[in-house]
Amino acid sequence: MPQIDGARLLADLHRLRDFGRFETGVHRPTYSDVDMRSRHWLTERMTEAGLTPDLDGIGNVIGRAPGPGPKLLVGSHTETQNYAGWLDGALGVMYALELARVLPGQIDVAAWADEEGHFGAFLGSRSFVREVEEAEIDAARNAHNGTPMRTALAEAGLAGRHRSHVEPGRYRGYLEAHIEQGDELDSTGKKLGIVTSIVGIWTFSVVFHGIQNHAGTTRMAIRKDAGVALVNYCAAIQRHMPEVAAPRSVWTVGRIALVPGAASIIPGRAEMLLQMRDADPDVLARMEALAHRLVAEANAAGPCRAEIECVFRSTPKLMSLAFQDALERAAERHAPGLHQRMPSGAGHDAQILAKVMPSAMLFVPSIGGISHHIAEDTEEADIVLGCQVLADAAAEILRG
Amino acid sequence: MPQIDGARLLADLHRLRDFGRFETGVHRPTYSDVDMRSRHWLTERMTEAGLTPDLDGIGNVIGRAPGPGPKLLVGSHTETQNYAGWLDGALGVMYALELARVLPGQIDVAAWADEEGHFGAFLGSRSFVREVEEAEIDAARNAHNGTPMRTALAEAGLAGRHRSHVEPGRYRGYLEAHIEQGDELDSTGKKLGIVTSIVGIWTFSVVFHGIQNHAGTTRMAIRKDAGVALVNYCAAIQRHMPEVAAPRSVWTVGRIALVPGAASIIPGRAEMLLQMRDADPDVLARMEALAHRLVAEANAAGPCRAEIECVFRSTPKLMSLAFQDALERAAERHAPGLHQRMPSGAGHDAQILAKVMPSAMLFVPSIGGISHHIAEDTEEADIVLGCQVLADAAAEILRG
Repeated sequence: MPQIDGARLLADLHRLRDFGRFETGVHRPTYSDVDMRSRHWLTERMTEAGLTPDLDGIGNVIGRAPGPGPKLLVGSHTETQNYAGWLDGALGVMYALELARVLPGQIDVAAWADEEGHFGAFLGSRSFVREVEEAEIDAARNAHNGTPMRTALAEAGLAGRHRSHVEPGRYRGYLEAHIEQGDELDSTGKKLGIVTSIVGIWTFSVVFHGIQNHAGTTRMAIRKDAGVALVNYCAAIQRHMPEVAAPRSVWTVGRIALVPGAASIIPGRAEMLLQMRDADPDVLARMEALAHRLVAEANAAGPCRAEIECVFRSTPKLMSLAFQDALERAAERHAPGLHQRMPSGAGHDAQILAKVMPSAMLFVPSIGGISHHIAEDTEEADIVLGCQVLADAAAEILRG
Repeated sequence: MPQIDGARLLADLHRLRDFGRFETGVHRPTYSDVDMRSRHWLTERMTEAGLTPDLDGIGNVIGRAPGPGPKLLVGSHTETQNYAGWLDGALGVMYALELARVLPGQIDVAAWADEEGHFGAFLGSRSFVREVEEAEIDAARNAHNGTPMRTALAEAGLAGRHRSHVEPGRYRGYLEAHIEQGDELDSTGKKLGIVTSIVGIWTFSVVFHGIQNHAGTTRMAIRKDAGVALVNYCAAIQRHMPEVAAPRSVWTVGRIALVPGAASIIPGRAEMLLQMRDADPDVLARMEALAHRLVAEANAAGPCRAEIECVFRSTPKLMSLAFQDALERAAERHAPGLHQRMPSGAGHDAQILAKVMPSAMLFVPSIGGISHHIAEDTEEADIVLGCQVLADAAAEILRG
């Protein structure tokens, strides 16, 4: 079995942490100056590891192993959410680099661009599997400041570069390691999570149309208050969703806007985003049906008109059972009884790669379940353990 | 009795409408170029009417009648909400100008600056009654674009001007006419509303503190979702407020914000504005007590922490009974049976003037109850009728 070098791995992770260090966390948004410097740094590490680095036109950094024979693609992403944690995807990329060193000629390393969605949804990995047309890049803008993606790519020195795509037949499959981001491992003392599936995410925009009017002179009896309609709908969602959801389902109203949004004006329009996640499409379909039924009931009750529209829908993706078994055997060897199979509640590039090759994921514990926050952390021993387990599983898969 | 000139009044109103005309409405925000041109135009009309005009350092335009003897102060405001209606306060100022013509030497005309609150709360009339310190002006900013009030005053040519204040002993009292802004007169076929009181407005900020977390990896059972806490609170307010409110009470949640406000993030903080209005302080106190009780219940139920704070509180103001009687006699003379006494659900400069002199208000119908909208309108015959009734009442008060 390959033997990873834990000190070298940790040194890599801490060096990467310096790019955009912010208090105990990192601020390294996609295509920012510090993000691009970290990508160039990564290409140098790949060269040192015997790989041929390729920084492509969407920011993906792919290091290809030389020679013939079966390869495994291993990776994650290096950019971060704004003012967020230091591990997140960085962990999976540094794992991949270490695997390339200990399994020479057999591991291609990938750092997918913009998994964190500063400009879109999984742009880097989707570009790699040929899902991103030029028109999508033309239209994309930074979600926080509106900068066109083309401008950001030009400023990052990426304009005009080729985009890399998956080479048919090259790979046995794809492996990705990541921090769990939840508290399931940490709260039970487990060290490793073997991902069974990546949840589907369905996001709905629900809009209520009332009549904007003066909050002092309009009697309660004649109001058509879109905000009241929204609140009643939200309360009904929270009340009834447990009746149709599964034990691991989650649903979230992350954004509400009342228009025009002033203390003395009855809202004429109210908008919300309702997101639901589950690994089972049937459960998601039940949750969606409830959201639609409650919209119909709101319309029947009046006085406001409600509309619901799906704005994002990703399919739940099952991970390769053979890869899960390999990960489980490696986990049992290094941490007997301290591992479990579990779905991923977050989206990951592995759900994109799973469309074109067998894919699997390994989780390490997030202390306190915290992620996307400067307090995000994992015990050093757990970081090293996770890399060794991933290396063992990769070696077994490559042996085929 | 004085005889007003309806055609002259309507011509004035239509000329004023041209300053900032926007479709069928008007866009004439405080201290804008078009607003300042309308104020200078008004000073010229005052001079023609035999008054001495005074455009002061906060934008108030006051036309003083010459000679000795009792005076009545009559006015309203000429700026508008953004892209709003043509009548609103403009009606009351043009009524005042017409009264000054038919009751020469007895009427001072006032156009109070910024009743619409682009920079503050009743800044013009409050300045007139010595309630506005220089420090308040130093700190004030435009609510829509953040421009400092000092900058706006300088650009309007008002920097360094004196501010006019009420002259003790000069006035019998204050009269203000306004469109109703509600549908009570229009829906019952009444032509005139005699205002009994101006409601108190109490506005509360309610904030919920949860824990921001990942909307995919955080199980429902351990969430502290501030948005859910807010929705439950709002729903409880709507459910229980009718139990403590009076028939004419109104309450409004005009603004809600979830922080950070993204589809995939559980809100860690949620904010709302809850406004309540009633003419009876005891009713307002009951409504406030309910809002506090429901905050306490939310805190007891958990898991989020709730806080409530009063951010604005105006006292209900009773209108002069003697002036109400004078208005009612005039109304009965010109429109027998087609008038009623009613509270004002909106705030008006009269509630500020009422602190220093007897004050009263007259409403004319708003077609369809619409105001602060380009569709705002009143029948021409009703506009003329209202001015004649105000003139009769003014003459009676001045004879007093």
